[in-house]
Amino acid sequence: MSDTPVRPVSRRGLLTGGALAAGGALAGAGAARATAADDRRPGEPEPAAGIGRAVEPFHGPRQAGVTTEPQAHAAFVAFTLAPGTDRAALGRLLRLLSDDAARLTRGRPALADTEPELGLLPARLTVTFGFGPGLYAAAGLDERRPPSVADLPAFRVDRLQPAWSGGDLLLQICADDPLTVAHAQRVLVKDSRPFATVRWVQRGFRRAAGAEPGRTQRNLFGQLDGTANPTPGAGLDAAVWVPDGPAWLRDSTTLVVRRISMNLETWDLLGRTDRELAVGRRLDTGAPLTGSAEHDEPDFAATGPDGLTVIPDFSHLTRAHVTDDRQKILRRPYNYDGAPTADGHADSGLIFASYQADVARQFVPIQRRLAERDLLNEWTTPIGSAVFAIPPGCTEGGWVGQQLID
Amino acid sequence: MSDTPVRPVSRRGLLTGGALAAGGALAGAGAARATAADDRRPGEPEPAAGIGRAVEPFHGPRQAGVTTEPQAHAAFVAFTLAPGTDRAALGRLLRLLSDDAARLTRGRPALADTEPELGLLPARLTVTFGFGPGLYAAAGLDERRPPSVADLPAFRVDRLQPAWSGGDLLLQICADDPLTVAHAQRVLVKDSRPFATVRWVQRGFRRAAGAEPGRTQRNLFGQLDGTANPTPGAGLDAAVWVPDGPAWLRDSTTLVVRRISMNLETWDLLGRTDRELAVGRRLDTGAPLTGSAEHDEPDFAATGPDGLTVIPDFSHLTRAHVTDDRQKILRRPYNYDGAPTADGHADSGLIFASYQADVARQFVPIQRRLAERDLLNEWTTPIGSAVFAIPPGCTEGGWVGQQLID
Repeated sequence: MSDTPVRPVSRRGLLTGGALAAGGALAGAGAARATAADDRRPGEPEPAAGIGRAVEPFHGPRQAGVTTEPQAHAAFVAFTLAPGTDRAALGRLLRLLSDDAARLTRGRPALADTEPELGLLPARLTVTFGFGPGLYAAAGLDERRPPSVADLPAFRVDRLQPAWSGGDLLLQICADDPLTVAHAQRVLVKDSRPFATVRWVQRGFRRAAGAEPGRTQRNLFGQLDGTANPTPGAGLDAAVWVPDGPAWLRDSTTLVVRRISMNLETWDLLGRTDRELAVGRRLDTGAPLTGSAEHDEPDFAATGPDGLTVIPDFSHLTRAHVTDDRQKILRRPYNYDGAPTADGHADSGLIFASYQADVARQFVPIQRRLAERDLLNEWTTPIGSAVFAIPPGCTEGGWVGQQLID
Repeated sequence: MSDTPVRPVSRRGLLTGGALAAGGALAGAGAARATAADDRRPGEPEPAAGIGRAVEPFHGPRQAGVTTEPQAHAAFVAFTLAPGTDRAALGRLLRLLSDDAARLTRGRPALADTEPELGLLPARLTVTFGFGPGLYAAAGLDERRPPSVADLPAFRVDRLQPAWSGGDLLLQICADDPLTVAHAQRVLVKDSRPFATVRWVQRGFRRAAGAEPGRTQRNLFGQLDGTANPTPGAGLDAAVWVPDGPAWLRDSTTLVVRRISMNLETWDLLGRTDRELAVGRRLDTGAPLTGSAEHDEPDFAATGPDGLTVIPDFSHLTRAHVTDDRQKILRRPYNYDGAPTADGHADSGLIFASYQADVARQFVPIQRRLAERDLLNEWTTPIGSAVFAIPPGCTEGGWVGQQLID
């Protein structure tokens, strides 16, 4: 893309039309806000109901985008704070981004929105803020950092690339519309520029909204993914949310983002039976090999005619299995699919994202068991990893991180 | 991504479970086809109605994916034919890809589908085949190539990159679900491997299905895009389809794919009035500057108080304007949005795709006028270009290209 600055344009229209100035853009945004959903011109048609108009509330004691029913599209945007972004500057940054998020999630353009027409369809937009270790350090608040918000322990299966790892600040932007995600990302990246650079962006997708309502997500291996998530209600709350502590901790959670490359080339060479033994579940229904429906309880003791357990010990199901809700994690993954190589090898995988109250108590033991023996490791490789604290939400007029930083 | 071959796995399950062989995958696909929509197991729930189950017919005198209401997601996949892919091999390749497309567009897995569960939701999938100049040459059928299926004339605004240009064979894969597009792309790329390498892939998106029904698409500049498309019916037919000629030409069309980088950095510095003069339309409603509604006829003679025409001569609207349906083109563009740079500069743009009966008669004159004076050129740069013949469709049991090649 060309980065050349605007060339002087001497043509008539621009001379009569106004100055080529950033000020013009702000005035323009103001004018266009008149067409937002809440303030239409007389006679303008009512926007069609549908997935475009659906709203997920931004304000509340807990951030949205965590237990929110996953939207179809996501951008995970990680930033590196610029030198000099201290506690006061972080306050300004988070105030600004929270204001943007509060408007865009309602279907209103951001204050300095230069494409205000792209801000009118929220499509269940959520913007979830995550704080990496570097943010606590920059704010001089290391003592408030949850201890497990740090690099994960090294796992033997890891082949981590710096290009997909770490980050001081994360914005998880999700919506059921890809244009809404692109626009929100653009606004938030622009407003973060005085404070931070972009470290990595991971775009992902799930089934489109309305394509397969009520079904568990499938990944690009064809597996159902997320069957074992904790049950909504008390079980989910116990798994995800920090129940007490000071104001910057209560109703917070943590996010682990891992980029998992999936080797479709070798996976596709496997027979169906082998795949099902590796997963521990049927590929079609997602039922454990000892059951007939997706949510049947697996029977790890059941043996077959050969005297061996029906669900092998090395299966993903066995290694990832947790019965206590407080030990469970909430998986909220997205698929990624880059361009294939010239010889047709896919660049496919999973943006694994899990929410849990405590990384050390919940995520790490599961991941240890998986790294040790999960047969799926043969066809998957973690190539990126990052951990973020997800601070509590904010009320109308407040901003995310206020309890921590203000 | 790791390209290591499958390591020998000595663990018990794989020994008892079956051979690590491609034959196993085929058997698996056969078994899974039993869960396709048309052949569910007793008691299995009826798949939810909705956008996932919607079908666009693959067979017919004209290919789907042209005048089809644009789906939300697209992959444009261009191939370079391998040396030795001659007329007979092309016939085998097109037979195979047509069979894949016929199945997947109905929500059935492809014959050798290794992820059959991902083939069950068509979501209005279309697979549109395009033939580049190299395909006619490889088949020894140069005399049947429409003369304007060739590199476009050079335009002064072009900064074309080989990585986004040309191609012997194109598959335009569109669906309302991004997982459906990813899976169809995977199947079609795999089956093309003995015959061709991947030259480029461009993934694009529009508003999600159901997000804003009945509205014209917006691009990442916030402009409505496609207002001037020909009216469905006789006007559209005259613009798009070749009405007569031999069997390989009648009911064919041509596709121009241009990757247009959009410089959001400089565009965002412009005031709203300047943008509207550059476009010739209001940004909010899409109305021409002389009108009040999107589809109002522009009045290029109208002058303002300053005596100048209200719609400037350099506006995109003026330069692109065509009144005769036979001169019009059918724009079917998708947005693209890559990862921003570290300093937050967007990698955004448009996968411009237009269908027209004759590139020389319709596309080239419009593009000449745009290249000469369209003020939008200040903020947009064509970085890729390719032209393909879109041969007629095929009937059940037939294959695309059969009239040309068989």
